[in-house]
Amino acid sequence: MKPCPDRRTGNVFSAACPSRAVLEHLSEKWSLLILHLLADGPKRTSDLRRAIGGVSEKMLIQTLRKLERNGFVARRSYNEVPPRVDYRLTDLGQSLAPVVQAFDRWIEERIVDVIDAQRHFDERQGMV
Amino acid sequence: MKPCPDRRTGNVFSAACPSRAVLEHLSEKWSLLILHLLADGPKRTSDLRRAIGGVSEKMLIQTLRKLERNGFVARRSYNEVPPRVDYRLTDLGQSLAPVVQAFDRWIEERIVDVIDAQRHFDERQGMV
Repeated sequence: MKPCPDRRTGNVFSAACPSRAVLEHLSEKWSLLILHLLADGPKRTSDLRRAIGGVSEKMLIQTLRKLERNGFVARRSYNEVPPRVDYRLTDLGQSLAPVVQAFDRWIEERIVDVIDAQRHFDERQGMV
Repeated sequence: MKPCPDRRTGNVFSAACPSRAVLEHLSEKWSLLILHLLADGPKRTSDLRRAIGGVSEKMLIQTLRKLERNGFVARRSYNEVPPRVDYRLTDLGQSLAPVVQAFDRWIEERIVDVIDAQRHFDERQGMV
């Protein structure tokens, strides 16, 4: 395994390389789903919460903050009454979005094959 | 949010859809790294362990078994002394591999931008 080289390019296979931490953050399901949705345009927290089944307010806020810290998402606060906040992809986030959407799309398109594989595996295990 | 439709196509945004569980499994870092490596050809457990920094034997075996159950990886046992076992991608795994590799490559190529963003964010927080 090559180490994390010179910090100009990462190596996700190296546990000590910053890119490994980014891989862990990005590959959390809430990160993936939020990035996917924001590719369609800015959203408020309530929009995201409605669109993503099973996410809690707390996880949503935590994940958005982490995405903001890592430069994928920008938070914008409008000077209105009542106050309004929304989130949008940065240029960095925009460049990642197609990769994330391709990942989700692959899963959605091949889910039947995965379910078939699970059934065959479980049947084989049952026969042992 | 549309529900998981008719089990012919998934919807990763629905918590109850099987595709959500597959998203969770696949997006675990060890799954991503194993799929990435196996795209280059069959590997033994010891090869994978050497190539993936920070993975324990236990996590490696657990993840390989889950990848096998979901139809991404095939385990082959050779009738040799001492016994030899290797893992390779199935056709399903092969079709996913480019998507996973694109994800890793994006992270490795843009890691400097992410680190910059983290520094700026932390500096802004420090000023508050």
